[in-house]
Amino acid sequence: MRNIALKLSYDGSRYHGWQRQKNAATVQETLENALSEVLKSNTKVLGCGRTDAGVHARVYCANFRTEGKIPADRLPFALNALLPDDISVSAAAEVEEDFHAVFSSVRKEYTYYVHNGRFKDPFYRNRAYFYPERLDLGALREAAAAFVGTHDFSAVRSVGTNVKTTVRTVYAFEALEEGDLLALRISANGFLYNMARAMAGTVLYAAIGKIKPEEIASILGSGDRRLAGPTVPPHGLYMTGIWYGGESRAAALFNNRQ
Amino acid sequence: MRNIALKLSYDGSRYHGWQRQKNAATVQETLENALSEVLKSNTKVLGCGRTDAGVHARVYCANFRTEGKIPADRLPFALNALLPDDISVSAAAEVEEDFHAVFSSVRKEYTYYVHNGRFKDPFYRNRAYFYPERLDLGALREAAAAFVGTHDFSAVRSVGTNVKTTVRTVYAFEALEEGDLLALRISANGFLYNMARAMAGTVLYAAIGKIKPEEIASILGSGDRRLAGPTVPPHGLYMTGIWYGGESRAAALFNNRQ
Repeated sequence: MRNIALKLSYDGSRYHGWQRQKNAATVQETLENALSEVLKSNTKVLGCGRTDAGVHARVYCANFRTEGKIPADRLPFALNALLPDDISVSAAAEVEEDFHAVFSSVRKEYTYYVHNGRFKDPFYRNRAYFYPERLDLGALREAAAAFVGTHDFSAVRSVGTNVKTTVRTVYAFEALEEGDLLALRISANGFLYNMARAMAGTVLYAAIGKIKPEEIASILGSGDRRLAGPTVPPHGLYMTGIWYGGESRAAALFNNRQ
Repeated sequence: MRNIALKLSYDGSRYHGWQRQKNAATVQETLENALSEVLKSNTKVLGCGRTDAGVHARVYCANFRTEGKIPADRLPFALNALLPDDISVSAAAEVEEDFHAVFSSVRKEYTYYVHNGRFKDPFYRNRAYFYPERLDLGALREAAAAFVGTHDFSAVRSVGTNVKTTVRTVYAFEALEEGDLLALRISANGFLYNMARAMAGTVLYAAIGKIKPEEIASILGSGDRRLAGPTVPPHGLYMTGIWYGGESRAAALFNNRQ
């Protein structure tokens, strides 16, 4: 069986998240339907993460196994012709037999977009979290820095899925100003459920003075979800990067930013 | 009666254009409903132009008359609280008694966004026209320059509304590259029906070699719509500016770019 990795992006506004579920449109199901039609065989894909309803992906990886003979580089054209305009496949490559979209990944990046304007912007509807408060970006960045490193992230996750450990390593947590948008960019070896949105909510609380940056360490230490900031809404969240190990073919596909 | 001008922006994707019509949601009707609620009195607005279904506005002017006492600078907050997230009011000011959103304007600007990428981008759905062809921007700019000046623009309009004259003055027609987006920015003293979209379609034809830039003058001279390029789809079109005359209060509101 060939093992093929797809690089895709999607606007999550019209979907109930990535993962297939009954009676609701999901990105996985939409992709599987297009793929099954192209390959003329019922085909299941494995996604690199379960994004929630309304969450977007600028970069996402899904892999699948097939006996089909279609050259991998024809797949983006064939799939895009069938996919709705809010899902797009930009690359496909045959990868190693043991490649797994989740377990082969060594690093992931999420970016949370905050629209810090005076009035809502129609073009950020479903795309960025409107947050008109005056922000202290110095305090926000100080709070963000306190998350970097290897910690137990129980204080900034929602309980929902079983995980072996709640320890993760955050490599970077940066705040980038892009006009009236604030991009909160977090990369880590993995994310707990709702961790990116709770971290974004917590640094926003620091930016409006509701949490002091120097309290972040003890909030993480407590493991108490109630001490951190809120889980901010899904529509501001984008998966923006995934990295794969070593010299693998998936690494060549994903590890270079466009 | 007070005469109040509103500065607004909207994502036109979910609307059947600006102008109120039976059995279809329009921007005008949505705004009038919010305004009537805020002013506690049935209120009609006059818009600066009829945008078609799917067309957007980053800058739009509407004025209305009222006996209401609400301070103009409270209107953006009051209206935005009632308006859906795809319409936003960013400013309001009491203007001269004789101000008219259409007739007082001295210049308008439309920008047509073309997504010239290899694959469709989910985040440009409903927002830019996907046009993956290889473009000769030199030819496109040469064709655009041929539209500048005072001409009869019959060859690039759709017949639909009665107008006294089909002569207009185009002040500028520029092509700006913004990443994989190409912004075709046209300003004129006025636009005929579908004129901006037909002009965009015509310079795109020049960019792919279907029309020669030096033919534009004779196409305009012919007045024959069939000789120019196609009317490109509405979702790439944005109203991006409007200017008002002299020292008027509306001029202060609209004539400076944000």
